[in-house]
Amino acid sequence: MSSQFGHVFRISTWGESHGGGVGVVIDGCPPLLELSEADIQKDLDRRRPGQSEIVTPRAEEDQCRILSGVFEGRTTGTPICVVVMNKDARPEAYREMEGAYRPSHADYTYQAKYGIRNWQGGGRASARETIGRVAAAAVAKKVLGRFFPELEVVAYVKSIHGLVAEVDPATVRFEDVEANIVRCPDAGKAVEMIEFIKAVRSEGDSVGGVVEAVLRGVPAGLGEPVFDKLEAEIAGAMLSLPATKGFEIGSGFAGTLQRGSEHNDAFVMREGAVRTESNRSGGIQGGISNGENIFFRVAFKPTATIFRPQRTVTVGGEETEMQARGRHDPCVLPRAVPMVEAMAWLVLCDHLLRQRAQCG
Amino acid sequence: MSSQFGHVFRISTWGESHGGGVGVVIDGCPPLLELSEADIQKDLDRRRPGQSEIVTPRAEEDQCRILSGVFEGRTTGTPICVVVMNKDARPEAYREMEGAYRPSHADYTYQAKYGIRNWQGGGRASARETIGRVAAAAVAKKVLGRFFPELEVVAYVKSIHGLVAEVDPATVRFEDVEANIVRCPDAGKAVEMIEFIKAVRSEGDSVGGVVEAVLRGVPAGLGEPVFDKLEAEIAGAMLSLPATKGFEIGSGFAGTLQRGSEHNDAFVMREGAVRTESNRSGGIQGGISNGENIFFRVAFKPTATIFRPQRTVTVGGEETEMQARGRHDPCVLPRAVPMVEAMAWLVLCDHLLRQRAQCG
Amino acid sequence: MSSQFGHVFRISTWGESHGGGVGVVIDGCPPLLELSEADIQKDLDRRRPGQSEIVTPRAEEDQCRILSGVFEGRTTGTPICVVVMNKDARPEAYREMEGAYRPSHADYTYQAKYGIRNWQGGGRASARETIGRVAAAAVAKKVLGRFFPELEVVAYVKSIHGLVAEVDPATVRFEDVEANIVRCPDAGKAVEMIEFIKAVRSEGDSVGGVVEAVLRGVPAGLGEPVFDKLEAEIAGAMLSLPATKGFEIGSGFAGTLQRGSEHNDAFVMREGAVRTESNRSGGIQGGISNGENIFFRVAFKPTATIFRPQRTVTVGGEETEMQARGRHDPCVLPRAVPMVEAMAWLVLCDHLLRQRAQCG
Amino acid sequence: MSSQFGHVFRISTWGESHGGGVGVVIDGCPPLLELSEADIQKDLDRRRPGQSEIVTPRAEEDQCRILSGVFEGRTTGTPICVVVMNKDARPEAYREMEGAYRPSHADYTYQAKYGIRNWQGGGRASARETIGRVAAAAVAKKVLGRFFPELEVVAYVKSIHGLVAEVDPATVRFEDVEANIVRCPDAGKAVEMIEFIKAVRSEGDSVGGVVEAVLRGVPAGLGEPVFDKLEAEIAGAMLSLPATKGFEIGSGFAGTLQRGSEHNDAFVMREGAVRTESNRSGGIQGGISNGENIFFRVAFKPTATIFRPQRTVTVGGEETEMQARGRHDPCVLPRAVPMVEAMAWLVLCDHLLRQRAQCG
Repeated sequence: MSSQFGHVFRISTWGESHGGGVGVVIDGCPPLLELSEADIQKDLDRRRPGQSEIVTPRAEEDQCRILSGVFEGRTTGTPICVVVMNKDARPEAYREMEGAYRPSHADYTYQAKYGIRNWQGGGRASARETIGRVAAAAVAKKVLGRFFPELEVVAYVKSIHGLVAEVDPATVRFEDVEANIVRCPDAGKAVEMIEFIKAVRSEGDSVGGVVEAVLRGVPAGLGEPVFDKLEAEIAGAMLSLPATKGFEIGSGFAGTLQRGSEHNDAFVMREGAVRTESNRSGGIQGGISNGENIFFRVAFKPTATIFRPQRTVTVGGEETEMQARGRHDPCVLPRAVPMVEAMAWLVLCDHLLRQRAQCG
Repeated sequence: MSSQFGHVFRISTWGESHGGGVGVVIDGCPPLLELSEADIQKDLDRRRPGQSEIVTPRAEEDQCRILSGVFEGRTTGTPICVVVMNKDARPEAYREMEGAYRPSHADYTYQAKYGIRNWQGGGRASARETIGRVAAAAVAKKVLGRFFPELEVVAYVKSIHGLVAEVDPATVRFEDVEANIVRCPDAGKAVEMIEFIKAVRSEGDSVGGVVEAVLRGVPAGLGEPVFDKLEAEIAGAMLSLPATKGFEIGSGFAGTLQRGSEHNDAFVMREGAVRTESNRSGGIQGGISNGENIFFRVAFKPTATIFRPQRTVTVGGEETEMQARGRHDPCVLPRAVPMVEAMAWLVLCDHLLRQRAQCG
Repeated sequence: MSSQFGHVFRISTWGESHGGGVGVVIDGCPPLLELSEADIQKDLDRRRPGQSEIVTPRAEEDQCRILSGVFEGRTTGTPICVVVMNKDARPEAYREMEGAYRPSHADYTYQAKYGIRNWQGGGRASARETIGRVAAAAVAKKVLGRFFPELEVVAYVKSIHGLVAEVDPATVRFEDVEANIVRCPDAGKAVEMIEFIKAVRSEGDSVGGVVEAVLRGVPAGLGEPVFDKLEAEIAGAMLSLPATKGFEIGSGFAGTLQRGSEHNDAFVMREGAVRTESNRSGGIQGGISNGENIFFRVAFKPTATIFRPQRTVTVGGEETEMQARGRHDPCVLPRAVPMVEAMAWLVLCDHLLRQRAQCG
Repeated sequence: MSSQFGHVFRISTWGESHGGGVGVVIDGCPPLLELSEADIQKDLDRRRPGQSEIVTPRAEEDQCRILSGVFEGRTTGTPICVVVMNKDARPEAYREMEGAYRPSHADYTYQAKYGIRNWQGGGRASARETIGRVAAAAVAKKVLGRFFPELEVVAYVKSIHGLVAEVDPATVRFEDVEANIVRCPDAGKAVEMIEFIKAVRSEGDSVGGVVEAVLRGVPAGLGEPVFDKLEAEIAGAMLSLPATKGFEIGSGFAGTLQRGSEHNDAFVMREGAVRTESNRSGGIQGGISNGENIFFRVAFKPTATIFRPQRTVTVGGEETEMQARGRHDPCVLPRAVPMVEAMAWLVLCDHLLRQRAQCG
């Protein structure tokens, strides 16, 4: 069950970094949605490697193919299978992974769990696994778009290491995010970030940061009480992305420094609707959306792969030193942006259909 | 599905603050475990109201009863139903909730979702809902105790508002947590916290903070790749607790300020086992435990209920002002500690049985 | 997961024959349905013991209580917990079960699976377990009734041993079923059946038969392709009832004696709707309802408990002889009728909500 | 969720008759099993079209490819994706399906449910969908083979129309089933069946029958109480196969003609083990296997596609007449045999892993 997500709009992903390919099966998709490979490709292109000078140069086209569930350009309600075949796999470039565990990677834990691991490029633990998520999210976006054409998900780089951007979640636009290769809508800070990432890479090192996302136009009433609270499912979705270490919504950790009288969001009437005056709740109360903007932040650690000698142990249990080769991102943040968006779309879509099931 | 948790060790909770009672059904529990109501009661007593002067004075004994699944003192493998009947329910004390939405509570969102809500004491959104979780966790603890008697889960108050405790996750003991009513193992800071909470309460206000937890003795290999990563399931579990706004594991948000060369955990051999020298990963790598301590922090916002007039709107859509009555916690942190522990036990137990299913 | 049923309208049952009680938690129920304990009690009364001279004389009132999920007479959308406490439990009457396995009961298999069993009255394997199903089905009926007020589920005894009733599924009425204690709408045959069951009981023996059910007014479009075909879910639901040995839908096994040219149901237009001329499909084609009557038959074996000496083995592995005591049904069929109906309601309700989730 | 099967060993199938291909993703498979495409191909070859003169001549090689989850010849514990690309698709041969509903097919119900259907060759409702099941079952067989090397699943044609074979489930061998193209181990009857099918086909008609299966060497203790009873899951699995109309296990419908004193299976000791003297229970009691042979029968209706004019209605709602073209099986039974086996393997494998999760 480890590779399935969602209850009603349910996806199953598969694939390894250097196996035959990667992909996803989407079950429970509403019928009659217009869907083409181009719809999906657009989003895959945003997360694929080799798209700019600050990400891994691995040359994958990540060309997707829809194998089922679409007929004459529309979804049929049956499972949609999307595959991307691996092309630029160079397993030999990762031969050093065969004999030793890369620090802060999943090599050791996979071995401990399964007694075997596909060591080529990290196997299933490669960020390449997220292709299936992004492809499925492109379909989720279509579903939500039919019901809530105004609904937007905008994610962006909020900080790289100590460089923190100024961004207003209420107004930030997709175009501003895509305007630069680091995907930071604060243009000035973006320049600094790009230079910083290049400098770090030239030192064979890596760096992390924070992605912020805002969901605008989510109707009130999505989410569930108790375990499947909307923020709980978003938190789980985000922490399921590679390299994540933290999540906060609305006021987040900083909210613990406020008193209730400062933190509470007063209800007011605006244009005939119940709204909140402030939004420290982050658009969700008691697990259910309240119609305000939902916004949250996700912490990504510095990329584990660095081009410096590091201490580690061999599969045989001897201490050794290893240095990465291969092609890697010095900073995952720019490519993490579409992944964060993808998981947000998937959570929203599943909750929309769940809401429709129970409440009509 | 909103009130179910776990895949193999699966629980279903139910109940409202002022309905007939609250409880849980546990499905998939291994047979032949010794289990009594006293085992469960012990943990319920730690989360029940009225246990100290800094929590709500609602006088509930929270006496549990096991209705099924246990025979002659041992689990039978069939569903275990645990119920706690509500006793000190005073629905009339919450009459003001009927007509207006309490700020930063779930009143409005439940109404928006369902078109109806049990307004008495918050209904299903009351922290009383967590009784079922704590009861189920007492059973999960039994399961894990059979396999890993050394496994410990210790949660504690790390901060209240700006008061931050000094605690070493590697050595903190349960006894030190329980030594004071605020559940902070830093005895000196605990005194300050208690005074602070009392002061805040006397002002009719409320306050939040951070709970930290450490899981010691978790074997390497628990967790799953991709969506059900151990940290993802812990994050989702924690954000499903009432009043939570953030989660971070290992280095967390602060880890984004380090470079890869600083952040990576070198592997070393220690007593014949593969171990990490540092533990910025927080005991999980690639979604799977690596045998080190798992530690994380959860942010809890200040209690939404305050005894001051607040602006809000009525069910009929008119702006108004309301002031809380009833019995409430000025700070949820002390009672949140056993809830955090409970969710950790539930996640670990489910993953242990999943691991056993797939890998033996 | 063994005690959960349904995907969107999901129920969890629990309870043993002689434990504290039995019950069910219903998750995913639509809000705003009028629901009272009386609605549920009505159906529980039809399945409870002691209701006539041909069923077990165990004197259980089976009085239900709703503990959650209903507020001021209407469902709230949160989990509905229904409990029935056990009253007339006489565990001592089953003491012989402690030491030896009753033939064709679940005593041995529970022991083989779990290494422990609640031997009092069959524990979880008792037909008493079906109380939770019947209670949940009363709620499912409310859900379906809101959308399809004309939808009817009518089950009845089709045969007892060699006595086969003449019944037209298209017209049989609930009142005719309830008109006699054997629940066979063929009044003449019912008299024979009742006499036959009494005669069999006086010999200390037992007898089985076939329950037939018809679902009228099911709209076209419910069900799913592939694994969750409507007939597959009905088949699984029926075979999950105690004492069942077979299931057939539409033409069933007899249909294997026809050629395609005889068996196919021609499509015709009737009152502006696509209808079939014959109905050998039994109202389902390719897993999805086609708007015709759904009808099926379920085989129930003779009750395993008989009041004659039988060969068996002890828990210690020695051959022995045992003779039942306690209170038992000489024929489960009359009480199986409401159980069959209950499972049909549960399947339909889940599929209705699933259809609403995916297709609106 | 319609295309997923299993709880712990969970498969997701996808694909249409004339789309890009068909396949399956298997999640939860134990690691370290030797697995090659040849292992899967062997079983696919038994179900593929064109293998004999009494099945459809569609010339599909059904060549499978494993895209993930296997590394250096062994399973890694991560999802296994198996695909079969469609080759001999001739969608134009099915053009008449576009405008009218084929009687007793799923054309109308898919349209009623989804408002759209892939009419080429039946789309998702084609028996081609079962490729994913058979591929997954080849993997399930590997899992079970590791734990219970003696475990056998043997299915065979028990009857074609009125021609009933004599077969002893206790001793029937796989080789005898595969010895002829109709897959009936009663060699004499097989000849009659083959001649009969040819005669029926020459008349443009079709015919059905019964497949019987026996599972030998299943250990006691597999299965679950209540909803997921082993017989319930097998029944649901079988009724999820195309063209099925009935299921019976052990004594089945004929068992309703026996009294309890005749029907009960006495327990005896044999070679130190608890065994039953007779096996009218069919190897399962109370939902759990008892160590005896599990045997059951599945009714398959005559193929809906016949080469004769039939009355039907058009998509536009006008009555019309249509006659099948294309390539079809005059009798699905020979190819249904490996499908029945496949579903049995899948149920057993899932229950084995569930048992391991809960009971070790």
